[in-house]
Amino acid sequence: MGLRFKPVDTSFYDLFTEAAQHLVVGADLLAEMLGEGADHADVARRMREAEHTADETTHALIKRVNSTFVTPFDREDIYALGSGLDDVMDLMDEAVDLILLYEVKILPPELSTQVEVLQRCAELTAAAMPNLRSMQSLEEYWIEVNRLENAGDKNHRRTLAKLFSGEFKTIEVLKLKDIVESLEGAIDAFEKVANIVEQIAVKES
Amino acid sequence: MGLRFKPVDTSFYDLFTEAAQHLVVGADLLAEMLGEGADHADVARRMREAEHTADETTHALIKRVNSTFVTPFDREDIYALGSGLDDVMDLMDEAVDLILLYEVKILPPELSTQVEVLQRCAELTAAAMPNLRSMQSLEEYWIEVNRLENAGDKNHRRTLAKLFSGEFKTIEVLKLKDIVESLEGAIDAFEKVANIVEQIAVKES
Amino acid sequence: MGLRFKPVDTSFYDLFTEAAQHLVVGADLLAEMLGEGADHADVARRMREAEHTADETTHALIKRVNSTFVTPFDREDIYALGSGLDDVMDLMDEAVDLILLYEVKILPPELSTQVEVLQRCAELTAAAMPNLRSMQSLEEYWIEVNRLENAGDKNHRRTLAKLFSGEFKTIEVLKLKDIVESLEGAIDAFEKVANIVEQIAVKES
Repeated sequence: MGLRFKPVDTSFYDLFTEAAQHLVVGADLLAEMLGEGADHADVARRMREAEHTADETTHALIKRVNSTFVTPFDREDIYALGSGLDDVMDLMDEAVDLILLYEVKILPPELSTQVEVLQRCAELTAAAMPNLRSMQSLEEYWIEVNRLENAGDKNHRRTLAKLFSGEFKTIEVLKLKDIVESLEGAIDAFEKVANIVEQIAVKES
Repeated sequence: MGLRFKPVDTSFYDLFTEAAQHLVVGADLLAEMLGEGADHADVARRMREAEHTADETTHALIKRVNSTFVTPFDREDIYALGSGLDDVMDLMDEAVDLILLYEVKILPPELSTQVEVLQRCAELTAAAMPNLRSMQSLEEYWIEVNRLENAGDKNHRRTLAKLFSGEFKTIEVLKLKDIVESLEGAIDAFEKVANIVEQIAVKES
Repeated sequence: MGLRFKPVDTSFYDLFTEAAQHLVVGADLLAEMLGEGADHADVARRMREAEHTADETTHALIKRVNSTFVTPFDREDIYALGSGLDDVMDLMDEAVDLILLYEVKILPPELSTQVEVLQRCAELTAAAMPNLRSMQSLEEYWIEVNRLENAGDKNHRRTLAKLFSGEFKTIEVLKLKDIVESLEGAIDAFEKVANIVEQIAVKES
């Protein structure tokens, strides 16, 4: 009888990659929502579906952590990364939902800039997840996401200043502020994911 | 000399049950606050007292965790459950406090629907806590709380749409939105408690 | 060969002290921002610098935890305390930033009362950090911060009642509410730091 190795469960990497790919879908739906003549109800319905699918991935991940003896890295880091990815989806879903709910007709162009940041963050995150296996080439990812978050923050502040410039009616300010803060929250959530990845990489190196 | 068993401290279950019973009191006070002709200042005073009593239970729980060698389940899960129950109380107290503070006279009926959800969640949680000892019959509890949270979320979105429908003055929207979000936060906090219980039950099974 | 002791790394205490001293600087800048005739853009620029310096201290702390084998107390408590101190700075920076961004000209005097609470909390925290080494004289610190948080909370509620009294235009209420909530958040964050210190002291005693 030969030696038997207890292999580390590799499906964790697949589930993280899957979770990040849902974020690419979510960010694209958010961009569609902001497009001219978009059918808000229809895009919101598809976003809700995407969010449910993402939830299933998160549950599969948690179930696997709870039932696996040897995890590829610390159990709490797997939880943190999984729920970090889930938070991004929730915040993007919230932004789409608020646009529908508040019946906002005119969306300032600054919002599109934020959604472009979100799309870029989603692509970078989806491309980085498979590298968790080798722990290679992750540094460029988290540096770039941090750079994008800084750019997003500057744009967020410009947007707030515009909202309060007197150009908008107060009730519109109240609506747009909620939406703008969801977008900012989603970008922050991407940065949080990148910070968790950095912490995992530092520990494992 | 016979065998000596080191008994697991059972008072944890009593303290969790006590904490959940405070939530039943809190949810009922919230319902009273929304009732016609309620004496807002008096209900708010009693809510503050209930919140202090709940705080004492939380402190007793934390003190016991720190001074007990063998806990019935993971120390961090006890912390999480204790502070989860405490968060619900804080958010219900916040809702009552804001109604008093903002001197809101007319409360849309949608708010009562949310408070009914909170009352039901509180009763379910108080009934479930003693079952932590046997880890039996907990599944129905967390499934039902999750269902209630979904219903609450739908009602929350309907309420927000109504607030922004043009029926209310902007300053009233600003006030009511804060109150409505406290209620939604309290329902979410009940769901979080149910999720913690689920995670404990999965680990222990 | 004599005995060799593996000394516990003492620089953790220095880094915590350094982090708390940044909070004294931050609270003072916030007070300056509220002063009559303050150059908002200039104070905000210096606040941003102070926040960056505080960030560097936090990073140094995290790096040290990750690279140190024997830490003076639980790794997760060091993280919690470090990020707790960091949160205070972020919220004070946010308050300053919002005053600049929203171009708020008239700040109600209640805000100055809150900033005085913040300055007092910062001084107490900076004075307490070096005592983590001996774990002596920490109790007065956390009791006093909890007392200050209670006073701050009462003042916060008075401020909100004033904002909604009808004295202010709705758009001003919207702006001031954000600023007032940042200040309240910063005071809460100081209380959280005090609670973490209490928990560490209880564990170590």
